[in-house]
Parts: sequence; structure tokens; C-alpha cells
Amino acid sequence: MSILVVGSVAFDALQTPFGKVDRCIGGSATYFSVAASFFTDVSIVAVVGDDFTDEDASVFKGRKINTDGLQRVPGEKTFFWSGEYGYDLNVAKTRDTQLNVFADFKPQLTEEQRNTDVLFLANIQPELQLDVLRQTKRPRIVALDTMNLWISIAKEALERVFREVDLIIINEAEVRQFTNEANLIKGARQILDLGPSTLIIKRGEYGVIMVTKDAIFAAPAYPLETVFDPTGAGDTFAGGFLGYLASRSEIHDRELRRAIIFGSVLASFTVEKFSLDRLREISLADVHERYQDFRALTHFDDFDR
Amino acid sequence: MSILVVGSVAFDALQTPFGKVDRCIGGSATYFSVAASFFTDVSIVAVVGDDFTDEDASVFKGRKINTDGLQRVPGEKTFFWSGEYGYDLNVAKTRDTQLNVFADFKPQLTEEQRNTDVLFLANIQPELQLDVLRQTKRPRIVALDTMNLWISIAKEALERVFREVDLIIINEAEVRQFTNEANLIKGARQILDLGPSTLIIKRGEYGVIMVTKDAIFAAPAYPLETVFDPTGAGDTFAGGFLGYLASRSEIHDRELRRAIIFGSVLASFTVEKFSLDRLREISLADVHERYQDFRALTHFDDFDR
Repeated sequence: MSILVVGSVAFDALQTPFGKVDRCIGGSATYFSVAASFFTDVSIVAVVGDDFTDEDASVFKGRKINTDGLQRVPGEKTFFWSGEYGYDLNVAKTRDTQLNVFADFKPQLTEEQRNTDVLFLANIQPELQLDVLRQTKRPRIVALDTMNLWISIAKEALERVFREVDLIIINEAEVRQFTNEANLIKGARQILDLGPSTLIIKRGEYGVIMVTKDAIFAAPAYPLETVFDPTGAGDTFAGGFLGYLASRSEIHDRELRRAIIFGSVLASFTVEKFSLDRLREISLADVHERYQDFRALTHFDDFDR
Repeated sequence: MSILVVGSVAFDALQTPFGKVDRCIGGSATYFSVAASFFTDVSIVAVVGDDFTDEDASVFKGRKINTDGLQRVPGEKTFFWSGEYGYDLNVAKTRDTQLNVFADFKPQLTEEQRNTDVLFLANIQPELQLDVLRQTKRPRIVALDTMNLWISIAKEALERVFREVDLIIINEAEVRQFTNEANLIKGARQILDLGPSTLIIKRGEYGVIMVTKDAIFAAPAYPLETVFDPTGAGDTFAGGFLGYLASRSEIHDRELRRAIIFGSVLASFTVEKFSLDRLREISLADVHERYQDFRALTHFDDFDR
């Protein structure tokens, strides 16, 4: 199945304890689509300004990424985000956000896009997520990401979207913020009660926990000795996760678990360099190899009776 | 193999968002020995006052726990700790510490105790840990726990103990504090360079990560919907971990991983009620059942090629 992703394509300025870069490619739809394209076809719906060059667009080239839906608006500038990380790489400090062309982003899907099998609503305003979702014709899987900002200023709209999706990918702190429940599992169950079948909770360097009606699955993050820049790790995870899932003929607990590991593997590559630099140089064989490392990392035997 | 544990037996006063108790049994050696006794014989070396009643001592009864080394000092009071937790159960706020009889604790091991196979140095001053260690005759396994306080005020002594033990059980934040290294895996390797073969890093609700020269193993914590009181979780983990390990004929990576899961299982019971209340009502069958739950929680298949 192919995926339609609606989100941002952006320029980032980044500073970490290990270096800085003034202008690099970023954006949720960018990380997501490159990660997902390791496994399946992706169509991207996003908007950029005319400062987004052909060289910038080369990030999508040679991959299973359809960029017909990447609109370039003359006379406008691309969404820009500037962020900084201290040694605690879990928390980004935003230095500057310039929405630019993204401020008026109101995607109109084409007939082909409306028929997508899988829809990923990256982190944009919930009203916009809902608007896009309502343009589609019942995709087989709808997943979304969100952020603390929308829980603060648009919780009602966000809850409406939650009620209409299958899969929510969300940070641990956001589960607590949305539900006012300190216990993560109880909070997760409250969100599942709204309708989604599956909650994928991201815990940064601590990995991921999946909660469904029937089961809980927990996976650590891949332990790295060189975490260089965590920007895009969450969107990369979502791309690897949903990309793998869309490539399978059936979606069940076993495949969901594998998808979480593939998402984690791809995210672990992303953080090794700035921007998508590391993601652009790896092959599917590298992904498969790290999947095996993940097995070795987490495996333990049954006990002898 | 049997284990000798040197640590505290205490009274705790606890307050959590879910209740409070003014006086209950606590102490590192208490949680450790009860947990370890599910798997092997334990001898406890600790000191209490004459306010420690026979009913209090019943926590050790009917288990494989030898309390000959539990000294009761007339006219003295037992070590007392009072702590409080907010909804973030990861962090305890100490309200009061009264060392009492524990202030002069200077254990003299008997001949039999000196010959122990396995020694666990619970969280006490590093100088005392070293003193006890030097009284023993080369146990096959020596493990220790420590805390942030000793890293702050007795780092040099602590480093000397680190150089003489096989296994260190330590919190994530303490690895960073001891090494001044933000990256956990790099920090772990610095500590391993001092001599220990194995570092077991506790991450609270995020589980445990083990780092050895050859491998890394990561396990999540058991996700609970009712975490009532986290006091003693770390010592219970250490007890389950080392108790299981001591019960095996050989110590290798495979057994270390199982031991981490057994430690995690026992810790997950401890936090379900105040004090050792939950630990005292479960059987080995309950432990085995939750071990299987852990397998289901963490299992994922290899991918199809």
C-alpha cells in the first residue's frame, strides 16, 4: 500500500553541543517520507517557497517519493525553524520559528491523493488534519502525530481528530498532558477509549511503548555512543513505522511490533548526523543489519524450570 | 551459592499521592534479602535498635534468610527515613533521616560470613563497603549499589570500591554524575574501564540497561497501572537479580539477562503496595508468571526477508 503524508518541508538552523548548521533541510514530511520510502511508495503533500532549490529537492530524488503534491509558491519563503539542544538532547529549545509560506497551507488533495490506502497526518493544526482526513475516501489506515502546542491551544479539535484515526503516535509527556493522568498506561487507555485501536508512545532515548486494547509492547531505543542531533527522530520513527506497516499484506500485533523496531532503527540513524545526512547515506541492508542488532539488544531466554 | 548482604534495616514513613504510612519496615538489606530469598539462601548483616520488635523481624521468617548477623543494640533506635513522592514517582523527596544505631554501624564478619560465595554491598558509605569487602575471602561475585550522596562527598573512596567489584548496580543519573559524561553508554564504558565486568544501570520506570565489555542488553520496566509506592524498588531489583544469579551454576550473558528480568519482575511487585507488603504475599509461581508476561511484553519476531 502507498502512503500519503501531509506535513511540513522546512529549513532548519540547528545547534547542538557537537556542532551547528545554519540552513539544512528539515520538516516532518521530509523525515517521514524519506524514512517510509525504504519500504513503500510515498506521496508528499506540503508547501515550500521559491527559496527551496532543486538541490534541496534532491533529498526526495531516487526514492519512492512522489513530489507532485509539493507546491512551490513564488515570492514566498519556506517554513524555517531554529533550535538548540544542550547536553540533555531530549529537550529542544526553539530559538526562532518563521511559518512563512506554511502559514497559509491549506492542502487540496487531487482525486488520486483522496484514494490513498494509508494517510499520515504529520504534526500540523488539528483542524487542518481533520480537513485533510475528510477529503480522503476511507483510507485503510489513518495515523497522526501531534505536539504539546495543540493540546494547549486546540485540545477540542485534537480530540475530534483522535476520534477518527486508527493510530496515534505521541510523546509520553503529551499523553500525560492530554489526559491529566500521571500513570502512562491509564492515560493511554483513556485515549484509546476515544476510538483509535493503537497508541504508539514515544519516550525519546527510552524507546517506545505501544498500547492496544489487547496488548502492550515495549522497546528500548537503540543505545548509541554518538547522538549528534535528535531533530527529526520522531518523524523518522513514524516514517519507518508506517512505511514498514504499509508494505505488509496484513496488519496485526506481530507486524506492529516489527514496525516499531524498524521505526526505531531508522530514527537511530537520523540522530547520528545533522538533518537527513545519515538517512541519505544508508541502504536497506544497513537497516536490516541494525534490526538484527536490536534483536540481540533486547533478547532474553525463557527460564529453565 | 548463598549471598551475604550488608546494608540497612530501617523504619520508613512514606507519603505518596495514594496514601501514607507512619512506620513501616524498610531498608536496603530488607528489600534485598526478601527478594533474593525467592531464589537462594541469604545472610543479612545489619543493625537495628531495640524498637525493632519480633513482629517487625517476622518479615524475614519462613524464608531462606539467616538473621544471625542482624544485631539488635539495646537502648538504641533503628535507622529511620521519611520520604514523600509527588505524581512523578521517579523522585523521592527526603523529609527526614535519623541514622540512629546505623551511625555507628561497623560490621565485623564471622568466619562463616567471610567465606560467602556472593557478596552484596548495599548502599552504605564506600569506606564501609571496602572494609567489609576486605574482610571476605575472595567471594566468587561481589556486587554493589551506591547513591548520588557518595559520588558527591566520597567519590575517591567510591572509585576504590568500584575497582574491586565485579558488578555495579547504579542509577542512570549516577553514571552521568560519576563520569561527567552526558552519553550513558560512553559513561558506562568509563566505569567498566575501572575494572568491573558488568554495569547494571537502573532507569526507574524506563527499565534497565546492562553494559558489559561485549554486549548491551536493554529491558523496559513492567508497565503497571497501579504504582503505589516506589520505595525499595531498586533494592528489590538488586535482590531478585543477584538472587537468581547466585542460584545458577554458571554466570554468563544469558543468565545475566534472565537475572535482570527476574529483578525487574520482583521490583514491579514491590511498587504495587507500601513497604514489603506485596512482596510478602506473592509466591515463586507469581514471579514465574510475570516473567512470562515480560516475554510477551518485549517479544518481536525477526522480519521476513
